[in-house]
Amino acid sequence: MSVEPRSLHRAPRNPGSQSALRQRNQQRIMESLLNAGSLTQAELSRQTGLSTATVSNIVKIMADDGLVSTAPTTSSGRRAVSVSLNSDGAVAVGIDVGRTHVRVIIASFDYRILAERSVPLPLGHLALEGVQAAAKLLEELLQETGLSHSAVVGAGVGIPGPIDSRTNTVLQGAILPEWVGINILELLESALKVPVYIDNDANLGALAQVTWGPHSSINDLIFIKIGSGIGAGLILGGSSHYGHIGVTGEIGHATISEQGLICRCGNRGCLETVASTAIMIELLSRGAAKPVTTEDIVRLAIGGDSATLRVLDDAGQAVGRAMANVANLLNPEVIVVGGPLAELGDILLEPIRRGLIRHSVPLIGESTQLAMSSMGNRAEALGGTALVFQQQGIHATT
Amino acid sequence: MSVEPRSLHRAPRNPGSQSALRQRNQQRIMESLLNAGSLTQAELSRQTGLSTATVSNIVKIMADDGLVSTAPTTSSGRRAVSVSLNSDGAVAVGIDVGRTHVRVIIASFDYRILAERSVPLPLGHLALEGVQAAAKLLEELLQETGLSHSAVVGAGVGIPGPIDSRTNTVLQGAILPEWVGINILELLESALKVPVYIDNDANLGALAQVTWGPHSSINDLIFIKIGSGIGAGLILGGSSHYGHIGVTGEIGHATISEQGLICRCGNRGCLETVASTAIMIELLSRGAAKPVTTEDIVRLAIGGDSATLRVLDDAGQAVGRAMANVANLLNPEVIVVGGPLAELGDILLEPIRRGLIRHSVPLIGESTQLAMSSMGNRAEALGGTALVFQQQGIHATT
Repeated sequence: MSVEPRSLHRAPRNPGSQSALRQRNQQRIMESLLNAGSLTQAELSRQTGLSTATVSNIVKIMADDGLVSTAPTTSSGRRAVSVSLNSDGAVAVGIDVGRTHVRVIIASFDYRILAERSVPLPLGHLALEGVQAAAKLLEELLQETGLSHSAVVGAGVGIPGPIDSRTNTVLQGAILPEWVGINILELLESALKVPVYIDNDANLGALAQVTWGPHSSINDLIFIKIGSGIGAGLILGGSSHYGHIGVTGEIGHATISEQGLICRCGNRGCLETVASTAIMIELLSRGAAKPVTTEDIVRLAIGGDSATLRVLDDAGQAVGRAMANVANLLNPEVIVVGGPLAELGDILLEPIRRGLIRHSVPLIGESTQLAMSSMGNRAEALGGTALVFQQQGIHATT
Repeated sequence: MSVEPRSLHRAPRNPGSQSALRQRNQQRIMESLLNAGSLTQAELSRQTGLSTATVSNIVKIMADDGLVSTAPTTSSGRRAVSVSLNSDGAVAVGIDVGRTHVRVIIASFDYRILAERSVPLPLGHLALEGVQAAAKLLEELLQETGLSHSAVVGAGVGIPGPIDSRTNTVLQGAILPEWVGINILELLESALKVPVYIDNDANLGALAQVTWGPHSSINDLIFIKIGSGIGAGLILGGSSHYGHIGVTGEIGHATISEQGLICRCGNRGCLETVASTAIMIELLSRGAAKPVTTEDIVRLAIGGDSATLRVLDDAGQAVGRAMANVANLLNPEVIVVGGPLAELGDILLEPIRRGLIRHSVPLIGESTQLAMSSMGNRAEALGGTALVFQQQGIHATT
């Protein structure tokens, strides 16, 4: 298996190039095998429309990568080659590096979770510490499940902040200031010793929804993560959208209040200054004996505390307003809200919906589905495995 | 040639379906032929990786549609079939139906404009009048250029308003109120008697930029049209983005001023209430002997009239602010501004850029290219021809 560094941004810049063509052909073969389990090369050729020579070449590459096995067989009395997917032999790893934890999930290519664990990290940890903790956890899980290191086809890693796709560095403005400027892809590949694909947490949340969640048939889905920062992940036309340099979904910096608070991005009155968990904690801790936590906010709101409910109502409406601009622009079928407040359900969703309907074009407000994520804090790591599936030609939406 | 009604939204909902596969295969063959001009079926098979049976089937369909011609030939002393593109025999038509004009362009598949003309329409014309005028103009142009009606592979038609892709009707909130609720696709197909693809004017402006304009290598481009309404057309990942029901790019209804004027969409303080040509005309006509026109605004601004410049400066900054949200979300490489004010150049672009930089995440503000469209009032009709190219498998970006 190749361990060459490769970038996240797999979308072919030139759709007509040979490598893009090879990738599209591999995707077709993968799709056919996922549907059928096992097929002869001749059957693969008929199902995909590809020539037998093309099928044979690509099957060889996939076998070298450990994705498929081939075996001689007979078909209508003639010799043939049977191709089947290595569902256990080849696994995808999803890793979520948060501010205070790292989570690792190992999944098979037929969507079974083989192992999963999360460990705490100290707040303000350095990138190297987070990466080393992830590598250690991965080795433990592989050992426990009896999988060899070479069975890992790739690891998809979620980073809570924007990544410059030109340099693979974490950008200023990231939620993890200790990580800024570091070439995170190189660091991860040298520690994990598998091909690594990186993406930000909101994008992985979106990918998890259409891969593992209830939205696998949705082509246009937005995942909005409300945490210490606020970001959106975009599935557009069935694929993740990365834009020109990989910095997308920055709805946390939509101007909500022209003369509002100064934001860490350098602007004023950004959505994050009125609706992040950081500002909620600041507002609710004023005059309190000790600062409230995100967990406190959830507990207090469910208990009916009026100040907490008011803060959530204001924040929700502001998120809904920013969401309306997103919906007016992109016309998604579904918008999913995730992050640590998702378990609040309708307490948070109702003011968000009010803000969305108030500020969107009527037809958009009425026709856009709005839901809370049910994946909890597993969304990012599940999305990490989905990133590996996608790289191997398994479409996000099927 | 088939004249069955077909919808604008060609993006396959199910990327694995047989018809989607056929379309992708046809795209590959089209791409190879556009590069090479003429190839044998065996060469097409080698270049595309498709089997000879697949190539032969698709070439037959393309020949039936008048897109290609086949001729017997020999290759290395063996009999072969040569396939070539019918560049003159098959043409694309682009039609722009505006509030006061209709424009028709006829283009060959190798990007030559064969005919072009625009005629005025009365303000407030009915849909049927606009469509009949377009049909009459098309017949005149075909006759003058000596092309037969059957040479028209399709017509791409720009409508200045949102279209519900589920019903192909023009939606409430459209700039052409007389057209609302009409099944515009049926009306156009029965008048023009060719396959019709419809789209809104901003989407066609974006498509024109990446097909006919200087941005053919750009995968992520936003076209913002400032006119009586304000809308955006989106090229994302190299293709037009249509969303769930076809209502995208509605940035004219981003809330700019929470307590601002009531907008025709039913909300308050939308971008259109502070930056459309309609509101500029209203502001500048106050106290004037007769209402100013859009042409007056251009003339007065170039002449240095201070009230006009102030109105443009305020409008430009508001457009820049809405644009910042779009750029923060989608990270386009290029944003192009079009519409009747585009000829103002830096007079309008400078306040837009100021608003964009003020309200966007710094890295996005710095790295997004901003330009005025140089296509003038031809953008939509050129985009219409591009819509036909796209349907025939010629990618927007190559």
